[in-house]
Amino acid sequence: MNNFTFYSPTFFDFGKGTESDAGKLVKRFGGSKVLIHYGGGSVVRSGLLDRVKASLEAEGLGYVELGGVKPNPRSGLVYEGIDLCKKEGVDFILAVGGGSTIDSSKAIAAGVVYEGDFWDFYCGKYVEKALPIGTVLTISAAGSEGSPDTVITKEEGMLKRGATGDALRPKFSILNPALTQTLSPYQTACGVTDIMAHLYERYLTNTKDVEVTDRMIEALLLTMIKEAPIAVADSEDYESRANIMWAGMMAHNNSCGVGRSQDWRSHDIEHELSAVYDCAHGAGLAVTMPAVFTYSVDHDVMRFAQIATRVWGCQMDFANPKATALEGIECLRNFLCSIGMPKNFAELGAKAEDIPYMVKTLCYGNGRTGTLNGFTTLNEEDCTKIYEMMNF
Amino acid sequence: MNNFTFYSPTFFDFGKGTESDAGKLVKRFGGSKVLIHYGGGSVVRSGLLDRVKASLEAEGLGYVELGGVKPNPRSGLVYEGIDLCKKEGVDFILAVGGGSTIDSSKAIAAGVVYEGDFWDFYCGKYVEKALPIGTVLTISAAGSEGSPDTVITKEEGMLKRGATGDALRPKFSILNPALTQTLSPYQTACGVTDIMAHLYERYLTNTKDVEVTDRMIEALLLTMIKEAPIAVADSEDYESRANIMWAGMMAHNNSCGVGRSQDWRSHDIEHELSAVYDCAHGAGLAVTMPAVFTYSVDHDVMRFAQIATRVWGCQMDFANPKATALEGIECLRNFLCSIGMPKNFAELGAKAEDIPYMVKTLCYGNGRTGTLNGFTTLNEEDCTKIYEMMNF
Repeated sequence: MNNFTFYSPTFFDFGKGTESDAGKLVKRFGGSKVLIHYGGGSVVRSGLLDRVKASLEAEGLGYVELGGVKPNPRSGLVYEGIDLCKKEGVDFILAVGGGSTIDSSKAIAAGVVYEGDFWDFYCGKYVEKALPIGTVLTISAAGSEGSPDTVITKEEGMLKRGATGDALRPKFSILNPALTQTLSPYQTACGVTDIMAHLYERYLTNTKDVEVTDRMIEALLLTMIKEAPIAVADSEDYESRANIMWAGMMAHNNSCGVGRSQDWRSHDIEHELSAVYDCAHGAGLAVTMPAVFTYSVDHDVMRFAQIATRVWGCQMDFANPKATALEGIECLRNFLCSIGMPKNFAELGAKAEDIPYMVKTLCYGNGRTGTLNGFTTLNEEDCTKIYEMMNF
Repeated sequence: MNNFTFYSPTFFDFGKGTESDAGKLVKRFGGSKVLIHYGGGSVVRSGLLDRVKASLEAEGLGYVELGGVKPNPRSGLVYEGIDLCKKEGVDFILAVGGGSTIDSSKAIAAGVVYEGDFWDFYCGKYVEKALPIGTVLTISAAGSEGSPDTVITKEEGMLKRGATGDALRPKFSILNPALTQTLSPYQTACGVTDIMAHLYERYLTNTKDVEVTDRMIEALLLTMIKEAPIAVADSEDYESRANIMWAGMMAHNNSCGVGRSQDWRSHDIEHELSAVYDCAHGAGLAVTMPAVFTYSVDHDVMRFAQIATRVWGCQMDFANPKATALEGIECLRNFLCSIGMPKNFAELGAKAEDIPYMVKTLCYGNGRTGTLNGFTTLNEEDCTKIYEMMNF
């Protein structure tokens, strides 16, 4: 196990009706003038936004609003949010929504207290300071509610890039599983796929002797395998959504990723897909993961065989461990299809002709110099082959 | 799943050599005058105390020392520590040791800023305020390094009682697995047993639909089953100790106990044993757990069968689930014996003649009115039978 530090100071308020605690929590963590940041649609229609506002008003807190966050959130709205916060003297950002809204809120929080262009953080600069952030989560997926990470897409060139910093960890996150009941089965499945990807990206490690984190990752994957089909089939089922919601947070606050090298090539490869086609991140991951894993299987057959047997219940083929390893990857693909995720370029709406462009952006964007590093190192040729494997 | 809040703001600094960060971390979390609290013996002999002092001095921090913490830490030393802190103007408590030292430090931290008798907190008063605490952990066991809990024994009547409060969560905890290499195999096994008990106490729940926390508890138990025999057999093995150390923290910071009722009857029943015989808490738990679980098996046979199959690898007896449930408990007992733990009163040094006294203290001490609540409710007769089951 490698040396590491772990810091997850977010206060989690979990369960039915917890959105009514928003005002008290903003106050507890020092806010007085709040930016409520959200997308639109269901947050407004469901009355959630009104309930959150009432909770702030009950505590005598002032607020301004900025809606309009879209999936794969854009830099344009971030600039708008930064200007608004400066003009209105906002001292606390409250994100009401899913990963996109939280990520956009983090970008604004970092940008308000920074003299330069907030995009600097998405070009590799560590976020040292930010306004305090709280969240009211409406979809279990990104794990942004407990993480120090944010991903934003810059309109020019559709560059999708990430930033990080402990200052971006939310002061509090309100997790009410019932708020996810308005999601469609497809949105629910996309969230589940993202959570499973966060787990696989940590599982694919080159660090030895990491039984504790291996076992925890497996535990959370087993939870998804049991609960996701229930949540997708019955949007009213509270308990499956509660299990998924806590698993989603644990999957990405890094408690099960500490002390080990991680992968993240599937996320990088997928980011080009959702940047170009504006597809759901989870849907892109469903297509990407099996291809990346199959391409990488020879690097560590036993690791893939381990997850196949421990998580997917495959019988170990002791004469041919690679068969077991590949069977586990097939189980993952079949599972994701069974909950309604796409399996290839055609179902995703991606096109083979865009592969050269995506490979170039992937391998040379964001300061990269031709390779993608992680569980294995991939060059342009490798990435081309992986995208081609998705086009079956 | 029940509604819950979860808050674990401790900064963890994990790995080889991390004790040299102590000074920087005290500074980061606002300390200027430190009480270094410790037991004695190996902390001094190994040079750890000197390295910690050097780290404080390098940051220009003042400090005073108080050694002498014993296993099952006593109230007498707590009073001494409170007086010393007040006299010297201490603003930060640094615990260097195991669970006893950390628990004693927490008691001092709460007592210094409280006008009444610190024992009030151990009679049920919630700890709202305390001096900030840091820890340098030398044994994986109590989980006190990431928890809001503390247990102290009052000399008068040898009352062993607990207190809690978020203010008692350490600001930082330094976890260097190499520091545990000086422990004897017996001490190592006691720590492992305590960790496993923290997991079982959370596993025995009456809350339905808690797959995510069930799976996480199982994950940590599976880790102990793999790593503990290695650590007990070879004190030089760093990796097994690293896995145990992180599992020990995760087992008790409650991330795998949220949203579910918990048990804690084994801890309560054991506390009487270590209070009367001054035995190691882990050793007492090794004797206590199988008896409590066997006595409780009919309350939820399927829960015991689930842990038997998922954790202990038992084949499910579908015609007789209780047989599987009992087999899992026997596996636990055999495992604990295999790492050197006692299995009954005789091996622990306990005596049948003390049972009436222990039952009385257990059922009527600490504000109890004749019963012990948890997974099931136990009265005096039940507790008597459970102690008698340990005397085989």
